[in-house]
Amino acid sequence: MNAHGLAARRAGIDTYQQPVVYVRADCRVCRAEGFEAQAQVEVIAGHRHVLAILNHVNGDWLGADEIAFSDVAWTMLGAAEGDRVQVRHPPVLESMAHLRAKVHGQPFTYEALRSVMEDVTHGRVPDIHLASLVTLCAGQGLDDQETVALTRAMVDVGERIVWNIEPMADKHCIGGIPGNRTTLLVVPIVAACGIAIPKTSSRAITSAAGTADAMETLAPVDLDVPAMRRVVAQEGGCIVWGGNTRISPADDVLIRVERPLNLDSDGLLIASILSKKAAAGARQVLIDLPVGPSAKVRSVAAAQALSRGLVATGTALGLQVQTVLTDGTRPVGRGIGPALEAMDVMAVLERAADAPSDLRERALMLAGLILEMVGKAVSGAGRELARRTLDEGRALSKFIAICEAQGGLRIPPVATRSHVVTAPAAGVVDGIDLRLVARVAKLAGAPRDLSAGARLHVQLGERVEVRQPLLTLHARSEGALRYALDFMAAQLPVVRVKPEFA
Amino acid sequence: MNAHGLAARRAGIDTYQQPVVYVRADCRVCRAEGFEAQAQVEVIAGHRHVLAILNHVNGDWLGADEIAFSDVAWTMLGAAEGDRVQVRHPPVLESMAHLRAKVHGQPFTYEALRSVMEDVTHGRVPDIHLASLVTLCAGQGLDDQETVALTRAMVDVGERIVWNIEPMADKHCIGGIPGNRTTLLVVPIVAACGIAIPKTSSRAITSAAGTADAMETLAPVDLDVPAMRRVVAQEGGCIVWGGNTRISPADDVLIRVERPLNLDSDGLLIASILSKKAAAGARQVLIDLPVGPSAKVRSVAAAQALSRGLVATGTALGLQVQTVLTDGTRPVGRGIGPALEAMDVMAVLERAADAPSDLRERALMLAGLILEMVGKAVSGAGRELARRTLDEGRALSKFIAICEAQGGLRIPPVATRSHVVTAPAAGVVDGIDLRLVARVAKLAGAPRDLSAGARLHVQLGERVEVRQPLLTLHARSEGALRYALDFMAAQLPVVRVKPEFA
Repeated sequence: MNAHGLAARRAGIDTYQQPVVYVRADCRVCRAEGFEAQAQVEVIAGHRHVLAILNHVNGDWLGADEIAFSDVAWTMLGAAEGDRVQVRHPPVLESMAHLRAKVHGQPFTYEALRSVMEDVTHGRVPDIHLASLVTLCAGQGLDDQETVALTRAMVDVGERIVWNIEPMADKHCIGGIPGNRTTLLVVPIVAACGIAIPKTSSRAITSAAGTADAMETLAPVDLDVPAMRRVVAQEGGCIVWGGNTRISPADDVLIRVERPLNLDSDGLLIASILSKKAAAGARQVLIDLPVGPSAKVRSVAAAQALSRGLVATGTALGLQVQTVLTDGTRPVGRGIGPALEAMDVMAVLERAADAPSDLRERALMLAGLILEMVGKAVSGAGRELARRTLDEGRALSKFIAICEAQGGLRIPPVATRSHVVTAPAAGVVDGIDLRLVARVAKLAGAPRDLSAGARLHVQLGERVEVRQPLLTLHARSEGALRYALDFMAAQLPVVRVKPEFA
Repeated sequence: MNAHGLAARRAGIDTYQQPVVYVRADCRVCRAEGFEAQAQVEVIAGHRHVLAILNHVNGDWLGADEIAFSDVAWTMLGAAEGDRVQVRHPPVLESMAHLRAKVHGQPFTYEALRSVMEDVTHGRVPDIHLASLVTLCAGQGLDDQETVALTRAMVDVGERIVWNIEPMADKHCIGGIPGNRTTLLVVPIVAACGIAIPKTSSRAITSAAGTADAMETLAPVDLDVPAMRRVVAQEGGCIVWGGNTRISPADDVLIRVERPLNLDSDGLLIASILSKKAAAGARQVLIDLPVGPSAKVRSVAAAQALSRGLVATGTALGLQVQTVLTDGTRPVGRGIGPALEAMDVMAVLERAADAPSDLRERALMLAGLILEMVGKAVSGAGRELARRTLDEGRALSKFIAICEAQGGLRIPPVATRSHVVTAPAAGVVDGIDLRLVARVAKLAGAPRDLSAGARLHVQLGERVEVRQPLLTLHARSEGALRYALDFMAAQLPVVRVKPEFA
């Protein structure tokens, strides 16, 4: 260790989530410790430390006695300008031996996964090792025992919330269906019926919007556990981002790599969902599994396998898990993208004349099942209780109250650029490609840009005239809009119109 | 695309192999194209382009009309100060769909692997996707057909050398045995016997030194194909780094991620070795497989499986492949680290009294087998021909001639720091841990620091007195030396001495 350290300063460089530090190639620390460019180093200031990538500076904007921090490195270390900081080699990660053992066919044990999740949670695992871990879990990489072990490990490295409330409901939808934003309807309906339902959600992994992304356009979602407790004590429900609660914190680190890798994994999916539910203190969990050829779950067989894994893992963790297979062959609602989806939700809550009826019907069905699971309605009577709660305006009042309790209701942002795609000929809409529409919404900027995405103007089977609008693309910049349009031009149509030859 | 572009300049920041560009967060291009920090972008100057990570600059060292390049980005683009460059979203990588298919159990086809290797070779695959690819190939991830397909794909995306010389020998050793630097002896012996043996080698993947690293301390190894042809035409043999020849270029990209991931893969190993051999124009290939509990190949069964894969893949590619299983239970020679291993080689070539006899014996055996394979010696007479070639000084003359032809013989660098580890008690050396000794050499700085590593002073079974030197650590900095020593202090002994109770 170098006795006097280096003087800390900000570099004024934004490296997003990857901490980077800059030192002169000829500085004392690099000479003494032998640090090469792009080496991983541990930077220490008092009790705080951060793992960062080291870059060498050859210009003269940095002194030989200085170390500059990228924005995220600066925030994570929490140092002040001029503080003396130490730089050293990072500790050797023994948990990575478990990845090697798994590669050679040895199943993961709880102890192995616990050790890996500790390192993941504390930011000690570089991205390429995270990518390797995600790949090892992808597809059918984890068996039942490993999935239970991973779920437990993810729960155990984070906080747990104990509620002393029973029943304590929760729901989740296995994404893949653009616009399927039922959580923002189910939570206020169930809470308005007097059943506690504290919902922690993820941001998008591979989709154009996650529940937390859509909710964020209507209210703050970055609540910590005490804030979440206050909202639930007051309103019976909440919809917050799980990443700020330290509930299953490893999940949010893994998502950073899962998103660009775009690989699916039953085991990771089950562990991700149920670790959040178990740690959040849920007792009764309803899981919506949309099934369709271009949904996340493509066949009834796959849905049944996943369903079995969810129920088995839930049981092992002491949760009552119920699954429901739903139609995953078409989009739900009209908007695809955080703000556009939030607008659909508000239309349903406000009983607007043009509110998307498919979104409404799904939410009523799901809320009804939860009300039956927790014994609030007898079997078969749940949907009607949910419908009355929505139609009498109590779900809207509850939703507004939840938003206010989370920090204040917001108006969703509106994109500054848009482009309308029209029908090339008169005919019938005989296909809407869910993966392509999500891809286009993402190319337009969703979910990072909350206002970006696509709004569908037609439904499957609908008759359209030539030049009738099929969908509108929304983006924040001309570049993003053009990027999405160029992609569409090079692909099969997102909305396919079968021409009529009269 | 932005019409006028940005003015290029150097950032004076060294990011090693990862190209990074810096632009102001509020610059026109970022606003127009919606580029976020840490986004992957394509930077274009005339006909040249480079994929880079974009960082946002908030300070005022960069103008709104400027784009700054890290050292490697600058070199790869080849722009001049003030050149106008364009920045755009990178093309969508369709080859990544093949990784998803493989995750879901679909074997890789040649077409899939060819498409992936094209993208890998052209630097279009981000590190986390490379890590996923390597993980999918790790362990027994590739079957025979996939291994043949990968080998062909790796050959086909690079250059091929056609020699019109027959026989055309080559050799390879599946690493894992510290100090086993036989190539630097076999090549001059075989070439001195009049058999062509153009050797392209890798740098270290997970070991403390690769053949190219050790050779680099004695002569330049960064030769291109025309230069390599001149050396072989003149001397009959060469020892060059394969990465500069565009022979199987994907291999060198994969190594960038294989090295830190530290995962083994039979399929990747076979494809890596045989793609280089096939593309380099070899016809007869001898492969040395050291077997030992802490070698890369741990059991005779594993060696036989690998051997079978090598011969089968070789045959599919039209190569005559022969394998030989050797003792992998102990280090070969004394040095571990590029320069230290080179010094062992020179001692054998010069017939020094203290030259390591184990290294000499292995080299004679391997050279003998090659001389028999190509018909230069009858079965059983190869070793004796090799011995005479070495002992009569013809191998030394040939080696010096090869070094001179490659750009000039060099003196290996000597480390500035060293530390002698001594026996804690009198006794017998009953264990030398190959993995630990390699790990210690790496922590001391090898292979990046050519002078760093370890030199063993004792052999298995040798009697030692208390405080007798067991090994010397060599490093370039106190930090690296201390790092290696701290690691040794926390582990089982690298050299284990069984005390004698007389």
